[in-house]
Amino acid sequence: MKTLAEKILAAHRVSGELKAGMPIEIKIDQTLTQDATGTMAYLQFEAMGCEQVKTECSLSYVDHNTLQNGFENADDHEYLRTVADRYGIIYSRPGNGICHQVHLERFDKPGKTLLGSDSHTPTAGAMGMIAIGAGGLDVACAMAGMPFALTMPKIVNIRLKNRLPHGVGAKDIILKVLSLLSVKGGVGKIFEYTGDGILDLSVPERSTICNMGAELGATTSLFPSDENTHEFLIKQGRGEDFTELKADPDAVYDEVLEIDCAALKPLVACPHSPDLVKPVEELAGLKVNQVAIGSCTNSSLTDLLEVARILKGKTVHPDVSLVISFGSKQVLRMLSRCGALDDLIAAGARLLEATCGPCIGMGQSPKTEGVSLRTFNRNFYGRSGTMSAGIYLVSPATAAASAIAGVVCSAETIDYVKPEMPEAYLIDDSMLLKPSCDPQREILRGPNIKPYPAKEPLAERIDKLVMIKVGDNITTDHIMPAGAKILPYRSNIEKISEFCYSQIEPEFHDRCLKHGGGWILAGENYGQGSSREHAALAPMYLKIQAVIAKSYARIHRQNLINAGILPLVFEDPQDYERIEAMDRLEVNCEALAEGQPLTITDASQGFTFNVDHHCTAREIEILKAGGLLNRIRRQNQRQG
Amino acid sequence: MKTLAEKILAAHRVSGELKAGMPIEIKIDQTLTQDATGTMAYLQFEAMGCEQVKTECSLSYVDHNTLQNGFENADDHEYLRTVADRYGIIYSRPGNGICHQVHLERFDKPGKTLLGSDSHTPTAGAMGMIAIGAGGLDVACAMAGMPFALTMPKIVNIRLKNRLPHGVGAKDIILKVLSLLSVKGGVGKIFEYTGDGILDLSVPERSTICNMGAELGATTSLFPSDENTHEFLIKQGRGEDFTELKADPDAVYDEVLEIDCAALKPLVACPHSPDLVKPVEELAGLKVNQVAIGSCTNSSLTDLLEVARILKGKTVHPDVSLVISFGSKQVLRMLSRCGALDDLIAAGARLLEATCGPCIGMGQSPKTEGVSLRTFNRNFYGRSGTMSAGIYLVSPATAAASAIAGVVCSAETIDYVKPEMPEAYLIDDSMLLKPSCDPQREILRGPNIKPYPAKEPLAERIDKLVMIKVGDNITTDHIMPAGAKILPYRSNIEKISEFCYSQIEPEFHDRCLKHGGGWILAGENYGQGSSREHAALAPMYLKIQAVIAKSYARIHRQNLINAGILPLVFEDPQDYERIEAMDRLEVNCEALAEGQPLTITDASQGFTFNVDHHCTAREIEILKAGGLLNRIRRQNQRQG
Repeated sequence: MKTLAEKILAAHRVSGELKAGMPIEIKIDQTLTQDATGTMAYLQFEAMGCEQVKTECSLSYVDHNTLQNGFENADDHEYLRTVADRYGIIYSRPGNGICHQVHLERFDKPGKTLLGSDSHTPTAGAMGMIAIGAGGLDVACAMAGMPFALTMPKIVNIRLKNRLPHGVGAKDIILKVLSLLSVKGGVGKIFEYTGDGILDLSVPERSTICNMGAELGATTSLFPSDENTHEFLIKQGRGEDFTELKADPDAVYDEVLEIDCAALKPLVACPHSPDLVKPVEELAGLKVNQVAIGSCTNSSLTDLLEVARILKGKTVHPDVSLVISFGSKQVLRMLSRCGALDDLIAAGARLLEATCGPCIGMGQSPKTEGVSLRTFNRNFYGRSGTMSAGIYLVSPATAAASAIAGVVCSAETIDYVKPEMPEAYLIDDSMLLKPSCDPQREILRGPNIKPYPAKEPLAERIDKLVMIKVGDNITTDHIMPAGAKILPYRSNIEKISEFCYSQIEPEFHDRCLKHGGGWILAGENYGQGSSREHAALAPMYLKIQAVIAKSYARIHRQNLINAGILPLVFEDPQDYERIEAMDRLEVNCEALAEGQPLTITDASQGFTFNVDHHCTAREIEILKAGGLLNRIRRQNQRQG
Repeated sequence: MKTLAEKILAAHRVSGELKAGMPIEIKIDQTLTQDATGTMAYLQFEAMGCEQVKTECSLSYVDHNTLQNGFENADDHEYLRTVADRYGIIYSRPGNGICHQVHLERFDKPGKTLLGSDSHTPTAGAMGMIAIGAGGLDVACAMAGMPFALTMPKIVNIRLKNRLPHGVGAKDIILKVLSLLSVKGGVGKIFEYTGDGILDLSVPERSTICNMGAELGATTSLFPSDENTHEFLIKQGRGEDFTELKADPDAVYDEVLEIDCAALKPLVACPHSPDLVKPVEELAGLKVNQVAIGSCTNSSLTDLLEVARILKGKTVHPDVSLVISFGSKQVLRMLSRCGALDDLIAAGARLLEATCGPCIGMGQSPKTEGVSLRTFNRNFYGRSGTMSAGIYLVSPATAAASAIAGVVCSAETIDYVKPEMPEAYLIDDSMLLKPSCDPQREILRGPNIKPYPAKEPLAERIDKLVMIKVGDNITTDHIMPAGAKILPYRSNIEKISEFCYSQIEPEFHDRCLKHGGGWILAGENYGQGSSREHAALAPMYLKIQAVIAKSYARIHRQNLINAGILPLVFEDPQDYERIEAMDRLEVNCEALAEGQPLTITDASQGFTFNVDHHCTAREIEILKAGGLLNRIRRQNQRQG
């Protein structure tokens, strides 16, 4: 009577009890990195002194920083390529595609575990895997053969009933879930999809749902490995990778949610949060300036064939700029071969490289106050590069229909036939470089690639000012913005720290330098969104000692601990209201112990309040060492 | 006994005598702008108060600023689209292609004149046109129906003999010319190609030669309109646009240069100038990090078919990043339909949008100290975005062969069949928006679009410091750098001025502000390269009053005059050596008169020297008015 998640976790358990809320450690079979988080992860891996990666399979993708407005990106690619070759990592060359799409096509395997330094790593749950996003340092540890530590999540069952109507897609299912549960509804949970509604969902459609499960704050999402999984694997020439996997019929879930697919309508997530969901028909007629199709959420072959069918023989509305970023080389080649690419170009689509592109603000920023419909997974404030623009998240069908109409428009009313999966996928792995593992391999390091910064062990006492006080649902994009101007500095913590909190508090960086760091105060769901550990590393560099929040997003909390920053939680959330920015807060860190609250004194206003830390013994060790890398080094020294 | 250039100029003469060195004015039939120079040109056009453009055909292309790292680019596109619709200009939407390639395919017409706010406008000379690059203000004047003023150039005949050997292309012909004549060898000249060698050159091949004639500093280049021209026009569905046009058999040229095509080898222009030309074989074996194919020089269908044939069935060397930017939607669609696009993707090419892309530093900057082989037209220092990189200009065949080899490699040794022109080109003008000319049309202006800055009339006396002293062959890229960070400010002179001379003298902007402007001192061929009038407008904004150089590139000299900046020339070039940066120079501007030198006092060192200005009466009027727009306004006021 086990859930599928429990079965896979049990098979990978290294320590702990599989009981919700308890600390566990699991073996990691596969890892993936992308270039924006990968350089730091491999620098950390190198610092651990391993001879070779110890996973079954580790991939290094280049899909984020591909515009290359300066030497930094190309230097990073060269570092990634050569460090991969040296240590046994498969390198996916720029142009080969978006990490999650390529991994789905070529590497995902039912029953395996995958840890990726990208928050959308759960995309692989479509294949019946436990796939988790983490900070780069956690991924580096997994490559070094260490187990991954997490708190055992609750297992939530989402039962999909009936078939989707015409014009409604997998994207609308996950938008529905987001509307029901909100962006923090998945914290500490794994979502397991079952029901007759999943029988109609292909692996790529399932991947859209698992991908955007990240927006719930979930640990991961997954589907069973069934006939559809087998079909996909066979068509990818990987039939031998198939294993049937599903929950026991009498499996007991912590929560159950039922969704009637037949009753779904096309949905849209409105600015600036993926859970501000409305029916498309409520926005019908809203003028659209840009439509962007692609990203790791919706750039599979069938997604783009659906778009091509809707666009065929038509022309994009003169007021609309339509941009398409393809999921992978496989997708692009197959579209090209079947003529669908020509249909897209003929209709006026602007073709971008097979990368994340506009989804991470890497180009294609909309016009001032523009309305941009995107098939992506996030619409956080400012992420598009245009602060005044409104980003709306929709399905590929809604996006395509609206691109022609020039206004928001439901695909329900459009006459087209939904494309089937092809007879066979085109297998071409020529852009995946197999590693030599040659110890003599020269690793190329450009001048922008700086070592991981040093950090002191935890101080006995923190007596510092509050550097910033922020509200609820602060994303890692708020803390450490991305975009074409900032992403090139992902390998250079000192430089990228200049941009920490720059979009909401431009003085933050200078204030931290002036006062020697201090505290961050935050509301609910602090650090949601991307897995970027730079949202912890930049504050660490700026000597932020502790965050006090009402609650945390999972990956960011882990990244804070890994960076040696205390992730504290208000015992009484009312205390948040009382403390002001620039208040002086004092705490005795020697009192840090499992299950014990800490007492903080607001010396400016003269009161005390309690905070929890919810840290495991392992986490406290890491914090006391001044971060995970310090702890590993200390262990290595003890062993050495 | 007329040359072809004389025939076309005679048919368009408005005033002046067609004698080398004499001022003439010609009627302009067609204009084109691109988005990086176009916004300013249309702002200037609007300031003239015309109801509608008065040319036969005016085009507004979007091909430069298409990365869109911020709201500015998309806002510019919207301004360009709506101002075009209002005033009768055809708007080529982003994704439709590079201006010169699209204009060649759809608009170039034998015997016509074309003025374009892009230095590579002479590309159209391939069709037997007089096509000239100019600043945006000159193009705005042409749209307003004013004649274009220039100094009648010398006519140089380049006689091509015999056929090109296998692996040698049109690019190698123009590289040969550059090696013989240098980047200033074409100043004040028109190059007219004849000889039996031209019979084997298709219109697209001829366009490569005319395009890069701009690197000679030439006014323009042209080919006769012959059977090849007719064939190309018929295949583009424009047979009716054909007129046979050639020089009289006994035409007398000012100079003649003969090139034996059969004796040519593949050539390469080495960093950092298009005239530092060597045989490819001298560089054979040099490791290559990047290969970039495309740009307005070499992105026609046959160029890319040639690349596809060389790459077919092979994989780009692991050490090389191969990027391709396509010339036009027509090229891209035809490649997609015939399967060549699949060959390119299969080989590992990274596909970029059909734009200028890396040629103008808009992304794809090479790695630190990288070697980048490019089929482009310019390899100026820093233009790629990576200051330490070396850019090498080559033919598409050399580029493709080297991408596979991973080292510089001649295409002579590769076995492939050169592609023929197709039976017919695919005609699809759906991304060309026809204007409504509706006077009520709302013109959209984003917050980054600022009016053309005001300028005072010429002062009676200049008594200012030398703000910078630079050497020979300073390009407009040195004066006003482009690239993804700076180009978005092309519609905002105040903002873009912050980057004026920033790559070679970061203090220049602040120094000018502090001292209220002053003088620029320069060597030979000042202002070569791009037509960007921002290289004059930014100095104008910074109150630069005059430049003293040994000689000027044509377009930049005209842009200085249009901006009201004196373009002075040392009577004795030795004086250049004596004057230092920050010297105080004084001149009486009331003495400015046709044919009269001016005497300048170096008050810091206590000596005087003479300068010429070579200005026509019309140019002196413009300078005294404080620039061309002031003069037009004054005329309009007198008429009003």
